[in-house]
Amino acid sequence: MPFFLRARKLDFSSGGQPWVVVLQEDEARSFGIVMGDLLEIRWKNNRATVIAYYTRSKVRPGQIGFFKEIWKYRKVRHDEPVSLRVLSRPPSIEAIRKKLLGEELSYQEMRSIISDIVHHKLGKVETTYFVASSFVKEFSDNELYFMTKAMAETGETLKFPGKVIADKHSVGGVAGNRTTMVVVPIVASLGVVIPKTSSRAITSPAGTADTMEVLANVSIPLDQVQQIIKKINCCLIWGGSFRLAPADDYIIRVQHSLRLEPLDKMVVSIMAKKIAMGVTHLVVDLPYGTNVKVPTRERAISVKTHFEYLAKRFGIKIEVVLTETSEPVGRGIGPALEARDVLRVLQQKDYRPSDLQKKSVRLAAKLLELAGKAKPGKGHMMAVEALSSGKAWKKMQEIITAQGGNPDVDSEDLTMAAMRSRCYAPYNGKVLEVDDEMIDQVARILGAPHEKLAGIYINKHVNQRIRKGERLYTLYAQSQDRIDLALEALRKRRIFKIVRVTAKESIAG
Amino acid sequence: MPFFLRARKLDFSSGGQPWVVVLQEDEARSFGIVMGDLLEIRWKNNRATVIAYYTRSKVRPGQIGFFKEIWKYRKVRHDEPVSLRVLSRPPSIEAIRKKLLGEELSYQEMRSIISDIVHHKLGKVETTYFVASSFVKEFSDNELYFMTKAMAETGETLKFPGKVIADKHSVGGVAGNRTTMVVVPIVASLGVVIPKTSSRAITSPAGTADTMEVLANVSIPLDQVQQIIKKINCCLIWGGSFRLAPADDYIIRVQHSLRLEPLDKMVVSIMAKKIAMGVTHLVVDLPYGTNVKVPTRERAISVKTHFEYLAKRFGIKIEVVLTETSEPVGRGIGPALEARDVLRVLQQKDYRPSDLQKKSVRLAAKLLELAGKAKPGKGHMMAVEALSSGKAWKKMQEIITAQGGNPDVDSEDLTMAAMRSRCYAPYNGKVLEVDDEMIDQVARILGAPHEKLAGIYINKHVNQRIRKGERLYTLYAQSQDRIDLALEALRKRRIFKIVRVTAKESIAG
Repeated sequence: MPFFLRARKLDFSSGGQPWVVVLQEDEARSFGIVMGDLLEIRWKNNRATVIAYYTRSKVRPGQIGFFKEIWKYRKVRHDEPVSLRVLSRPPSIEAIRKKLLGEELSYQEMRSIISDIVHHKLGKVETTYFVASSFVKEFSDNELYFMTKAMAETGETLKFPGKVIADKHSVGGVAGNRTTMVVVPIVASLGVVIPKTSSRAITSPAGTADTMEVLANVSIPLDQVQQIIKKINCCLIWGGSFRLAPADDYIIRVQHSLRLEPLDKMVVSIMAKKIAMGVTHLVVDLPYGTNVKVPTRERAISVKTHFEYLAKRFGIKIEVVLTETSEPVGRGIGPALEARDVLRVLQQKDYRPSDLQKKSVRLAAKLLELAGKAKPGKGHMMAVEALSSGKAWKKMQEIITAQGGNPDVDSEDLTMAAMRSRCYAPYNGKVLEVDDEMIDQVARILGAPHEKLAGIYINKHVNQRIRKGERLYTLYAQSQDRIDLALEALRKRRIFKIVRVTAKESIAG
Repeated sequence: MPFFLRARKLDFSSGGQPWVVVLQEDEARSFGIVMGDLLEIRWKNNRATVIAYYTRSKVRPGQIGFFKEIWKYRKVRHDEPVSLRVLSRPPSIEAIRKKLLGEELSYQEMRSIISDIVHHKLGKVETTYFVASSFVKEFSDNELYFMTKAMAETGETLKFPGKVIADKHSVGGVAGNRTTMVVVPIVASLGVVIPKTSSRAITSPAGTADTMEVLANVSIPLDQVQQIIKKINCCLIWGGSFRLAPADDYIIRVQHSLRLEPLDKMVVSIMAKKIAMGVTHLVVDLPYGTNVKVPTRERAISVKTHFEYLAKRFGIKIEVVLTETSEPVGRGIGPALEARDVLRVLQQKDYRPSDLQKKSVRLAAKLLELAGKAKPGKGHMMAVEALSSGKAWKKMQEIITAQGGNPDVDSEDLTMAAMRSRCYAPYNGKVLEVDDEMIDQVARILGAPHEKLAGIYINKHVNQRIRKGERLYTLYAQSQDRIDLALEALRKRRIFKIVRVTAKESIAG
């Protein structure tokens, strides 16, 4: 049944939306029209299909508001009668209702939801209903697959030449975990294609993209990325400019207000981006422990299972590596300090952080074996050799050159922040605990990741024996102010928990 | 653990909010702070408890934004270090999470949610999670009671003198159902206290408040209402200005986008307003049928059970009257036309709509018996007598006078709209169906409820025999334009379905 309203030409555009009309909210409701409904509207010799939006103030009751986009191209007179007919309610709304009532969604339904989220046809409230619906009945494996596929397909999808497109992903939460910048040059130096995109820090003092940015550009247009991959079979760039699986951002936004991100949903987010990137071989570094995203081994195994299931559905070869984690990997926290750690490993300096090298080699080995470049059990040796022979560093130099940086940078030449403050051991003892969370917070107070040179350098590890007066850590910042703020915070909570050891014990130890 | 940020004095006020600070969303997240968290902030010799809000643009990373409300009363320097500590997450957020995970809520928890919705501490997203949580596990009877109580208590609560405060409520959806304006004068004329508040139309061509407004003022300040009740023991006013159970408005807003209002939730909305009004004796008119809110007798019984349960918990005497409904009650649709129907009944005109009188008497009788003014079985007689003796009309005259209208109005003196268009039966026949929904739509196209004089007058009822040329209905509008629009709509869908009857049958019938 059609309704009749009076045209009102609005003085502004809808801001790049598709054809949209606005109606008084209460009136629209009373006609049974909701936000996002597809309407057929007719007026003198004209007909158009438009999307209904609510307004509280832009039109009066009895009016239908036309944005400039419409009345610039079609003749509309003020107050002219317009008939409206609801063509269809967005199928996405119906699908969300269905899921909320406990039913399972088909691919078409899931796709309609994800697509309408990306195209702003569903707002925050509707997206929230969608997220909440998973509490009525958990997403089935099939639904998780559908969601991943839909999320990947509703964003940009990349294609790189070659049959093997490798990737390595670390699930967040471990300070200084910059293995990516070591793994990529190792495997790429052995011929694996690995177009690596990374994120910037959100909840940590530095993301891989922040750290790589110390050495080269990371915001690189797609066509240039394609050329780089063609030439040197790898890159280390920021993924944020590609709109990979953009639905995820909108979903995470509403998840956040209740501090919910179910772990299966996290797997979907990660995998959707991998699908969009065209990845075929993937190693996932999955740390678990009290202070990281995945708290227990049991949960880690469940996450692993979800990764493996989705990988199988998409025909991706995957290896998920579980590691129990209790302290930072590497010694520097903050973009420049982490970059220095990475360079020290690639340049095989004597004082390189051995934990970063060890973990990177382990992940590179898995990826080499997975991608068929190394026979089972031989990956480790190949990875170590790539480092010690300088091949990996040579590849990193190619990456730095391709991305507009200085390939001759030496780990010790990197500029560090001007202001420093060192902390020394107050007595002989042994490190009982290193407070990862506090390291993160202090690094952020010091200015990381916005100030690239700021951060902390950690000199000691858990279980290490220390002597009175030995350096425990150094704070780096661009102003004394920041150092003072950090010191104030450190008075309330320490980074190191040290147990005192008497001289006797010390000799005995 | 405290965080440190730099003060930024914002150039504007928070708009009447309590003390609020704003933080960069990403940064706040990384500190584990979410919207609505209660923070303790400290700066040079100052300490304050504030609520955290997100912003995308008002402050830069590393800054905390102070609204004018704060820095006008406390000394704050630009860029001064401020320490933040999360005191508590809103208990309401925890309660919503709990319900979303399938647990039952206590009164304290429910109250925290409802109160934070009313005070804007929970936004649309959080309110949506709350609404969605009922799909994880339906609200228990206890939870419905808690919600009703919390909704009533977080708004205005009224008190009227006397032990019996009566009320009558019609669950929406039936065109022209103006029984309230007949029931109130009947029962009030017999000594029952009935401070009746009604709503304006939202999804129909006229609400009781719109119709009463044809005869008198309906927006009346509370102190004046109290005086009116004291003097004439009743009123017929608009309830919208009293903020009765205001949480409901916010909840309904998010329910709407998925076109969900579970019926048990509807009962909560109604009862919360009754509790806030201090009602002690309540008759509920609950129509059910294909075109109204409650579609089947089965659902109606379930709604009745919920009403009775809540009434019992609050110590309210209740009677829920079920009626199957297939067509409008009364003959006029639209404020002035409905007011004329009401006056014709109260003034006992020969051509008064008998269905409106019958239904009103039935409801008044129930209320009289419930309130103890009539012995069981005697209510009907008393109600009829109040009408036929003119007592009810006299009471209505008192109401009209008290609310500033003209008490000497005669039903036939009411101004009707200037433009009219009549529809006549095209052949002899019998009315098979009257399309309630179409009547509503046409009345709205004609301008109701905004134009009080517009609407439709229906001459025939379902099952009635009609002769060719007899009047079926009359359209009323303030402009020919509106009439034309309505006629255009009526060409596509008719109000009456008439089955042709041959002359022979006609004689036989």
